[in-house]
Amino acid sequence: MGKRYETDVRVRFSDLDALGHVNNARVLTLLEEARVDWLWADAVQNGLEGLVNAIVVARQEIDYLRPILFGNPVQVDIGVTRIGGASFTVDYELHTEGELAVRAVSVLVPINLEVGRPRRLTDVERAYLAQFVAG
Amino acid sequence: MGKRYETDVRVRFSDLDALGHVNNARVLTLLEEARVDWLWADAVQNGLEGLVNAIVVARQEIDYLRPILFGNPVQVDIGVTRIGGASFTVDYELHTEGELAVRAVSVLVPINLEVGRPRRLTDVERAYLAQFVAG
Amino acid sequence: MGKRYETDVRVRFSDLDALGHVNNARVLTLLEEARVDWLWADAVQNGLEGLVNAIVVARQEIDYLRPILFGNPVQVDIGVTRIGGASFTVDYELHTEGELAVRAVSVLVPINLEVGRPRRLTDVERAYLAQFVAG
Amino acid sequence: MGKRYETDVRVRFSDLDALGHVNNARVLTLLEEARVDWLWADAVQNGLEGLVNAIVVARQEIDYLRPILFGNPVQVDIGVTRIGGASFTVDYELHTEGELAVRAVSVLVPINLEVGRPRRLTDVERAYLAQFVAG
Repeated sequence: MGKRYETDVRVRFSDLDALGHVNNARVLTLLEEARVDWLWADAVQNGLEGLVNAIVVARQEIDYLRPILFGNPVQVDIGVTRIGGASFTVDYELHTEGELAVRAVSVLVPINLEVGRPRRLTDVERAYLAQFVAG
Repeated sequence: MGKRYETDVRVRFSDLDALGHVNNARVLTLLEEARVDWLWADAVQNGLEGLVNAIVVARQEIDYLRPILFGNPVQVDIGVTRIGGASFTVDYELHTEGELAVRAVSVLVPINLEVGRPRRLTDVERAYLAQFVAG
Repeated sequence: MGKRYETDVRVRFSDLDALGHVNNARVLTLLEEARVDWLWADAVQNGLEGLVNAIVVARQEIDYLRPILFGNPVQVDIGVTRIGGASFTVDYELHTEGELAVRAVSVLVPINLEVGRPRRLTDVERAYLAQFVAG
Repeated sequence: MGKRYETDVRVRFSDLDALGHVNNARVLTLLEEARVDWLWADAVQNGLEGLVNAIVVARQEIDYLRPILFGNPVQVDIGVTRIGGASFTVDYELHTEGELAVRAVSVLVPINLEVGRPRRLTDVERAYLAQFVAG
């Protein structure tokens, strides 16, 4: 049974655009905050500094289901949908005021910072990520 | 034969994140700038104020093919891939230093601002958008 | 004796620029978050919706004393240093990891949204703000 | 007679906040763009890479004289008001639609990146900056 990482993300006044709701690009920043929180607060405590120091985003898909307004924090939960040799895929659900507002997917690629190139996932990383795979 | 709207977008120093390249969320801002430029500079001159005043993004897909660094402006070109009753889909290609760096798609929904709800595309809007459909 | 409003503000990964610390412009966003939190969480509960709905910034001064890195939330405390007829001045101190990192001042002007022009502070607003004046 | 560096900066839709004008923090980003453009396009061509690679902002003052709306680019001009041993001060004027909208000042400190500490201005840098001092 896959668990999901859950965290609150605070919406800033400056996340709103002139239409009065969180800008479409800024929604990715909210998801990034949740992902960084996951990898810093949780993965690092499990000895996975490598996942934090250098990950790049290879692909994203976002469905905007309802507008996000200023006010209470939003809730984001994250799971893992695929673990490849040199990349993995996470999915997100973002709720605001109890309603699902965003569904998204990111393909993430760990980087070897010394050579500036993608690297393979280690066994420890794969085991950590595997906990978050639904099944 | 579909034409594509082409425009340059300047990368700001503040678009970079701590990894030294344009942040993944900020890439959507560069695409938004190109789209807004298209709709303001071109569509409005063709009498389509309605497309500018209120459009929301329903879905996006982005493939990040190579990092975007600070320096020269990037080139973005935009076409239309689908014209529906109450939405349309555009695709983007972003080049930096002569190389394709991003490929993306947005599903856009025009809004009736008075009632705050999606509305149907008008015939004039459909005809305008049709010029940008490849074929 | 003036009290100060104290709140934590979370630093986002995307607040960092290519130098690896919070960008100078983004520091104003952290202060804005604290100010908005003050006016929403505290002033509104005291019946001062007018202060929240429309305030514009007329002037700011910021001293950047040390860099703000990614990690723990920063602490911001806010006081009032001047209450004028149609504006007031607040000062901020931002601490990170126990050290003072930013000292700043903002001159704020309440706006009458219906006519889009500055308005005078009401007696209730002046009484609320007076609690935060050191003396 | 001091010259001033003049450049246009494009306002992005995403620079607007929910009040429909450029956010107060984002105004600093517009000034940063002008400053970076000055140092990259002009100073570097005069052999002053050091000024570009690492400068931090020690203090800023900003007067917001009128709102900046979305539309045409703004014009920013920059001069130098003080050249110290290990810092210098620049002033900015930002015009929108022919009207002065922002007046600001930044104290800038060059950094020795290898040791991560402020360094003294070189003679070549001082001579370059001196051209921009009014007198």
